[in-house]
Amino acid sequence: MQRALLKVTTHTSRVTVRYAETDQMGVVYHANYLVWMEVARTELCKATGFAYSEMEADGVLLAVSEAGCRYLRGARYGEDIDITATIADSNRRFIEFHYTMTCEGKKVATGRTRHIFLNKEFRPTRLPDRYAELLSAE
Amino acid sequence: MQRALLKVTTHTSRVTVRYAETDQMGVVYHANYLVWMEVARTELCKATGFAYSEMEADGVLLAVSEAGCRYLRGARYGEDIDITATIADSNRRFIEFHYTMTCEGKKVATGRTRHIFLNKEFRPTRLPDRYAELLSAE
Amino acid sequence: MQRALLKVTTHTSRVTVRYAETDQMGVVYHANYLVWMEVARTELCKATGFAYSEMEADGVLLAVSEAGCRYLRGARYGEDIDITATIADSNRRFIEFHYTMTCEGKKVATGRTRHIFLNKEFRPTRLPDRYAELLSAE
Amino acid sequence: MQRALLKVTTHTSRVTVRYAETDQMGVVYHANYLVWMEVARTELCKATGFAYSEMEADGVLLAVSEAGCRYLRGARYGEDIDITATIADSNRRFIEFHYTMTCEGKKVATGRTRHIFLNKEFRPTRLPDRYAELLSAE
Repeated sequence: MQRALLKVTTHTSRVTVRYAETDQMGVVYHANYLVWMEVARTELCKATGFAYSEMEADGVLLAVSEAGCRYLRGARYGEDIDITATIADSNRRFIEFHYTMTCEGKKVATGRTRHIFLNKEFRPTRLPDRYAELLSAE
Repeated sequence: MQRALLKVTTHTSRVTVRYAETDQMGVVYHANYLVWMEVARTELCKATGFAYSEMEADGVLLAVSEAGCRYLRGARYGEDIDITATIADSNRRFIEFHYTMTCEGKKVATGRTRHIFLNKEFRPTRLPDRYAELLSAE
Repeated sequence: MQRALLKVTTHTSRVTVRYAETDQMGVVYHANYLVWMEVARTELCKATGFAYSEMEADGVLLAVSEAGCRYLRGARYGEDIDITATIADSNRRFIEFHYTMTCEGKKVATGRTRHIFLNKEFRPTRLPDRYAELLSAE
Repeated sequence: MQRALLKVTTHTSRVTVRYAETDQMGVVYHANYLVWMEVARTELCKATGFAYSEMEADGVLLAVSEAGCRYLRGARYGEDIDITATIADSNRRFIEFHYTMTCEGKKVATGRTRHIFLNKEFRPTRLPDRYAELLSAE
């Protein structure tokens, strides 16, 4: 019997800009885009077949080792932002996600996060089989 | 030999308003005042003689059960805010702090937080002697 | 001709707890519940018939004068939280909202915010007719 | 008469990790390092001779166009973090800052932000003389 041929490696999430996320410039404070990437990453994990909270309960932490964002135009309070998260690269030691953020089809920002897998003692660890398969990390 | 007669029950901390803390109204987003209260509470604990992180390491969590704030005027980016935290009431089961926030001597906000002591299983617990004495919670 | 008999004075919004919203206690940091109340308040405004961003564009700011929250149990990463916001009291000078937050039907927290209407110069102002009617503030 | 020969192009700021900044992993949530960079950038501006709030009042916004961070080890509640901000590159159109974050001399993270100058209509603008000189952007 065959395994599923199609794996989920991308997913789009939507957030509505909160007042709390704006700053006095009248647009979203730049650090908050990283939070939106986290929302999209969480939902992408769910779409591949597991909740990230389960992985943590299994003793594997997905620690951010690098994060970056390019800002193309300021997002504003009340706007709906679509964040497409994609698994760009992965193996048993790390995973990299890329993100595209749009508002009504226009690009707002692009981003990238790289993560390493840590055990509860914050030491690098290898991703267990179950998650490796789901995250294309074999 | 006598115990010290004077206990620290109040302490003033200073924060400088961060751009991240403002919102598009041009003043500090209201939820951030609760974070400043936390800064002042942490420093008040230190002033009484212990680091809150030690208490957590000892298995006692200071969980917020109530929080409130009255806003008198909006704080602005770059302003120095003085937060005076005071132990208003305490026993082995709970502790209540009151806060006054000022900017150049003018009152900006007042606040109040009430906390209960929890163990690592998030069950109510009694505050151990060492901390009870320091927090006037006997 | 009659005015509409039924006004919207309550609305329920849902948020999913973000990792960013947790703290090292393993539950949501208490100040973030105020942000959820803002999300529910924004959606309640929309449900009554206007976007809060329009009101701001019209030169009326809804400044928080008081906020409070009682925490019943810690919300956790990934949980869906339903926030019911209700207009508890209002006139041309102020508005008060009450909030109930639940997770799978169990109460997590209750809250309350009171707001005054300010003009662009941060001076108290009277709420214009259009919004007064929608917010039951006549 | 001569101009000052020495310009300030680097400055070190200190923050103490707030409980609000941690997440359930027990370390600082990664987006908050960008806030610390903002704190250091603000203080570097002051050290060069102006408050960023003045520049905004003068109609020049310092909008973030790119931000990035590499995380070397997790910062923890209560730790003192030193953030050294340096002007890495600048002209009348943009400015780039580099950051090194340490805790007791050990590197915690490095970062980078790039900014463009915008006018109040969010259009690119040239940095006025006064600031250009202070920011080595001539």
